[in-house]
Amino acid sequence: MKQVYQSDFVSFQKRLRPTVDDEVKYKRPSKEILLKPYVITGEGKVSFHLHYPRAKHVEIRSYTERYELQKSGEYWCGEFDMGEGFTALFLNIDGSEVITQFLPVGYGGNQLINYIDIPDKDFPIEISNCEHGSVVSDYLESAITGQVERVFVYLPAEYHKKNMKRFPVLYLQHGHGENEACWIYQGKMNFIYDRLIQDKKAVPAIVVMANGMNYEEKETERILNIKKYPEFLLKELIPYIDGKYRTLSDAKNRAMAGLSMGSLQTSIITFEHSELFAYAGVFSGFVRNFISDDQSHLTAEKMNEFKKIFITFSVESDRKINTSLILQKTTEC
Amino acid sequence: MKQVYQSDFVSFQKRLRPTVDDEVKYKRPSKEILLKPYVITGEGKVSFHLHYPRAKHVEIRSYTERYELQKSGEYWCGEFDMGEGFTALFLNIDGSEVITQFLPVGYGGNQLINYIDIPDKDFPIEISNCEHGSVVSDYLESAITGQVERVFVYLPAEYHKKNMKRFPVLYLQHGHGENEACWIYQGKMNFIYDRLIQDKKAVPAIVVMANGMNYEEKETERILNIKKYPEFLLKELIPYIDGKYRTLSDAKNRAMAGLSMGSLQTSIITFEHSELFAYAGVFSGFVRNFISDDQSHLTAEKMNEFKKIFITFSVESDRKINTSLILQKTTEC
Repeated sequence: MKQVYQSDFVSFQKRLRPTVDDEVKYKRPSKEILLKPYVITGEGKVSFHLHYPRAKHVEIRSYTERYELQKSGEYWCGEFDMGEGFTALFLNIDGSEVITQFLPVGYGGNQLINYIDIPDKDFPIEISNCEHGSVVSDYLESAITGQVERVFVYLPAEYHKKNMKRFPVLYLQHGHGENEACWIYQGKMNFIYDRLIQDKKAVPAIVVMANGMNYEEKETERILNIKKYPEFLLKELIPYIDGKYRTLSDAKNRAMAGLSMGSLQTSIITFEHSELFAYAGVFSGFVRNFISDDQSHLTAEKMNEFKKIFITFSVESDRKINTSLILQKTTEC
Repeated sequence: MKQVYQSDFVSFQKRLRPTVDDEVKYKRPSKEILLKPYVITGEGKVSFHLHYPRAKHVEIRSYTERYELQKSGEYWCGEFDMGEGFTALFLNIDGSEVITQFLPVGYGGNQLINYIDIPDKDFPIEISNCEHGSVVSDYLESAITGQVERVFVYLPAEYHKKNMKRFPVLYLQHGHGENEACWIYQGKMNFIYDRLIQDKKAVPAIVVMANGMNYEEKETERILNIKKYPEFLLKELIPYIDGKYRTLSDAKNRAMAGLSMGSLQTSIITFEHSELFAYAGVFSGFVRNFISDDQSHLTAEKMNEFKKIFITFSVESDRKINTSLILQKTTEC
């Protein structure tokens, strides 16, 4: 068996292909005739074949590009080079932006999105032939956020096999407009970590992912409060995780990492609390606080206490957004 | 804090409301002006307010009804009585059936769907003020289905508190065209069970949910093979669960239940294997095999070995489908 990751938020492996046949939809026969709505070609291009028989104009937009489809019978078709990796897509039919059942669905920009994920030629995410850890959804009532929070917890395969062993913990944060599930369903975090452990490239650790987009909501507006997450993490989440799971709970066994907005949350929290964290991962990374002028977390003394700070950013961002800003903010530090 | 369930497959609580403002979408300000795309009124009706400024005709279809929306400025509006509970919805814009980001998304009929879930007045699913169990995603490579299977496992809150205690197990199956996640995200199984345990109306048990829609796929067709699931359950899943979790693994502590197609799988498996199962729950239930003529599981001897068989069906089905068929099949037994 050799199987690469092809799941999304709603379906797991092999069950992404919908039918277009009303006969199939309502009568549920045991045998169904299906056409693939999209194929990733050998050259890494995406070939679309979308069933919208009554549409007059169909195009797909990413954050930066437009791809016009051509009608062929009842289908709208086109083959495009969309680069490698994850790209959010927005289908536009006759002027209306919609979600299509024919492409994977996920969460980004605070909303349901379609996307395409083109496997990196040098690093396909094979999920077969590997021992798998568990992904736990825990639910805790937070006095700080004022709601029940869902938290994803990755437990390495060893966790259930060695009943007395304790594990280091990584707190891993998503980017702006994403949620606590994105590192799993879009980031394939668990399957990547499973493989790293099996290949002895990483030590088994517990990974904790929580929602960092905390809004204060009124009837017709909401205001993002990025200070809620640090408070939730420090006062409620760390005690909850250390109380429930077999963790190593000293600073040298606790790390935090985050992507984009999550990297800023990581910088602020870890530099301020080196008594709690010995490692920080700052991906597409912000170190300076660009949301407020408060740079009190950035003193040489605070940063020197650190065991390791890992900073990455993409010079040519796939989404061609914010790269120069990231570069500027990172080098300023 | 008092909070009822309002999550879907992609978002958890309070994060379902998308923006329609391009300024918001691309510039990501900290404060966003939002309008609710739908509201459930005090009378249990649904009031829609969907932002499709360039559409010429918008209607919402369920499996049995059509609801035409009226244009009001940039929005399409309407207020409808859609009954109580869960109803799959299909948005149709200018003749094209699409998924909308403005309504919850789930999985049914083998595809991504929108739906509305109108709380039962007598039984709202409050998720706050309750101790919560965990929902685990486990991944196992199945030689029988030929792929990595995702299995959802509910662990009651007590599981992590009493480190030596063993628990009974319920295997819970979804209906036709659904998947292993539907009992969680659409059925709210974990939150309902949390409450039943807290109210001492149920004993804590482990609940296991796996995919029962096993297809044999060829290039352009797929054939449903409902015999795969029993084989997977008996040979791989039960040993996996009993090996990994602290279960009570004798028959009198193992139950199976299922909805619709899952109820037929339950009948076939449990009646054939009363040495493994002492309880069966047959919801919207089939006892006779209506897919093949093989009724070998239905002998008085086999059924008499049972501790309890629980059969339910709805006389006036919300979806007005299959009721008479279910009634006929159930009473025939």
